[in-house]
Amino acid sequence: MQRRDAVKAMAAAVVIPPVFRWQDPAWTQWRVNGERVNRFMSEMAPIGRSPGGQVRTGFSDAVIEARLYATGLMRGAGLEVEVDPVGNIIGRRAGARADAKPILFGSHVDSVFNGGNYDGATGTMCALEVAHTLNDKAYQNRHPLWVTVWCDEERGLTGSSGFIGNISEHDLTRRDLNGGTLAEQIRRIGGDPARIPTYRHEAGSIAAYLELHIEQGGILDRTGVQIGVVEGIVGIMSWDVTITGVANHSGTTPMDERRNALLAASELALAVDRIVRARPGRQVGTVGRLTVKPSVQNIVPGEVSHSIELRDLSMEKLETLWSEIRAEGDRIMERRGTTWTHTPRPTNISAISTPAIRDVITESAGDLGLTSQVMPSGAGHDAQDLAKIGPMGMIFVPSVGGISHSPKELTKPEDIANGANVLLQTVLRLDQRLP
Amino acid sequence: MQRRDAVKAMAAAVVIPPVFRWQDPAWTQWRVNGERVNRFMSEMAPIGRSPGGQVRTGFSDAVIEARLYATGLMRGAGLEVEVDPVGNIIGRRAGARADAKPILFGSHVDSVFNGGNYDGATGTMCALEVAHTLNDKAYQNRHPLWVTVWCDEERGLTGSSGFIGNISEHDLTRRDLNGGTLAEQIRRIGGDPARIPTYRHEAGSIAAYLELHIEQGGILDRTGVQIGVVEGIVGIMSWDVTITGVANHSGTTPMDERRNALLAASELALAVDRIVRARPGRQVGTVGRLTVKPSVQNIVPGEVSHSIELRDLSMEKLETLWSEIRAEGDRIMERRGTTWTHTPRPTNISAISTPAIRDVITESAGDLGLTSQVMPSGAGHDAQDLAKIGPMGMIFVPSVGGISHSPKELTKPEDIANGANVLLQTVLRLDQRLP
Repeated sequence: MQRRDAVKAMAAAVVIPPVFRWQDPAWTQWRVNGERVNRFMSEMAPIGRSPGGQVRTGFSDAVIEARLYATGLMRGAGLEVEVDPVGNIIGRRAGARADAKPILFGSHVDSVFNGGNYDGATGTMCALEVAHTLNDKAYQNRHPLWVTVWCDEERGLTGSSGFIGNISEHDLTRRDLNGGTLAEQIRRIGGDPARIPTYRHEAGSIAAYLELHIEQGGILDRTGVQIGVVEGIVGIMSWDVTITGVANHSGTTPMDERRNALLAASELALAVDRIVRARPGRQVGTVGRLTVKPSVQNIVPGEVSHSIELRDLSMEKLETLWSEIRAEGDRIMERRGTTWTHTPRPTNISAISTPAIRDVITESAGDLGLTSQVMPSGAGHDAQDLAKIGPMGMIFVPSVGGISHSPKELTKPEDIANGANVLLQTVLRLDQRLP
Repeated sequence: MQRRDAVKAMAAAVVIPPVFRWQDPAWTQWRVNGERVNRFMSEMAPIGRSPGGQVRTGFSDAVIEARLYATGLMRGAGLEVEVDPVGNIIGRRAGARADAKPILFGSHVDSVFNGGNYDGATGTMCALEVAHTLNDKAYQNRHPLWVTVWCDEERGLTGSSGFIGNISEHDLTRRDLNGGTLAEQIRRIGGDPARIPTYRHEAGSIAAYLELHIEQGGILDRTGVQIGVVEGIVGIMSWDVTITGVANHSGTTPMDERRNALLAASELALAVDRIVRARPGRQVGTVGRLTVKPSVQNIVPGEVSHSIELRDLSMEKLETLWSEIRAEGDRIMERRGTTWTHTPRPTNISAISTPAIRDVITESAGDLGLTSQVMPSGAGHDAQDLAKIGPMGMIFVPSVGGISHSPKELTKPEDIANGANVLLQTVLRLDQRLP
């Protein structure tokens, strides 16, 4: 809580002076090359494509290919490329002011298993397009500009966690389901795990971080608003639940002698939904993963394991919802003659974006003639790690039908170009105005 | 329905004359060797035993070993052993009357995966103990007596189905999950699949069939009654259900835009339970198998597949319950914005035991000083196939704690001896009294 308060205080303290347009009106008219950024997207699309969708997972061969493609584009934009110890790719454009902190912008290129081409890649390609545009214009930036490709975002923000010094020795040496360690995987993509324990960007070490991302929800698409200005990234509390009843023969066990773990789980899943909906607000609650044992037609289910996940910008609201769910769960288990355990998974603290940066994004969109609205991000992003060390802002572009983590994922070419222009103008304004 | 009525009429027509005890009082005092039958059980126990339970499935090596053991016991009891075309082991004791139809008694030796030593083996070892006792006493039976070990009971009554001519060419040649065919598996245990198409025992070809089995439920154990006289084997109607919603990101999909297949499935599972309990009677209804897709913490479930199974002695009641469940399912799907399909699986018609045989079992138990009660069998048994071709009766012995299909399955040695004695006395009485 203390760290969260400190971050909030830091965010509130960021003040960005108004632009003095008479000083340099030219760059406010600069635009990205919309055709080029969409070509970047098309060239990314075949990488890791399978019949079931994009498979550019974690540290796969497909991700390595995608990273090589991004590295080439960085060099083409005149950036100086380095792979950091964690395996993040950082493309640097030196700044004129020796004492200025860097402005970072980027996203990731890994996907979920059978995902789409837009989650991650859109923000990365837009960042690279901004770098190309700045290079085309021979822009003399005041701050160092760092274009970042964070590694292994989908499985837990590995790259951005490591960037801020949050990967432990234990994380590096624990074996995953495939028997490999994170250290081995990071080495595979060119990182240097031996240096990770001392690698860290402290709070206050960056001027700002910007990330463009597809919304992954349907709000912009449904309302026709062109740009989302992210208010914050929701916090996530989640639990591994195991409900234990008694497995027994479905034919020989009378109804009133059953201790049916699946009926208890059914009631609990409905209770999560009901309790989350009962309050006003945009909180969500989901039982997404669920496994029945033994899952045989003629056996009364003896055990059900499932997840419960709650998301909201307010961590306090999440705590309240959970206490209601837990009490209702206890009542259900008692009534059904079952027992339950609920083990919390690591909490993602919500990350509120920096209000002053939100304002610059809104202003940039407005000056480009684009509509925008402030909205939460229901999904997690590397930006939430970067928010721990400096001012953070996120730009959302519409997802057609709100579909994400699916081969049906789509963001229209004009929306990608719009987003890249908002990113360009925001980078330029921050570079001009931040100290 | 017509065949069911014909079978009912056949059962009602069986009349067994009262015993004339003065004719041969000696055999009414015969008793099995309780120590020996429990030794048979102990010698079966290591066959197919694994850390997770008994694995004497289908046509496994362990089943072959169990069959060899049973075959040896048949020979030891002076039976003439044959493996029929389906793979059933039949041990014959010739009868004095040339024109008499055979009296059959037996059970199976296969188990479910990770099951116990008692389901099937208990009835088989008791039948073999009865054969040994008759041999010890040099009993001159009037009817041919056939001790039967039905093959592959647990996966669908394969042996008894084949015995009555109900295995089709399609059943024999269809590949199962392991890529083998039933014909290949039957050949492996010494059957002759080429002869199956013409192999058949017609209705009216047997004098009676008796089967002793563990109850697999907890009624006898809880009430302390020693012998269950089976009223009938419940009918089973079951369906494969698929509920389709929309899979979407749990963080970015507002609660009121979800089409959550798991919440619909939860409501349906609770509705099955509620509707089945709402009527008086011993009917049961179960959602036992359930699989969620994609079953990931941060994805709203898009598809749930599950079973619905209903069991009762009355097929009419099952039809009524299903029509109520189907109507409620339609309402749930409409409310949740989901759709469902429900595909019926093959129906098991209930098999009512022959009242006159029930009476002889009750009488035998009473003469042995054992308490008994008439009860349904909630589980399926080979006896339901045999009921299609002649008079049928089943004897239940208590299952400790009602546990079955589990390594914790247990029937106490004294209950096994009691059951074997009831079986012995029932066989003797039927042999003496049936025409």
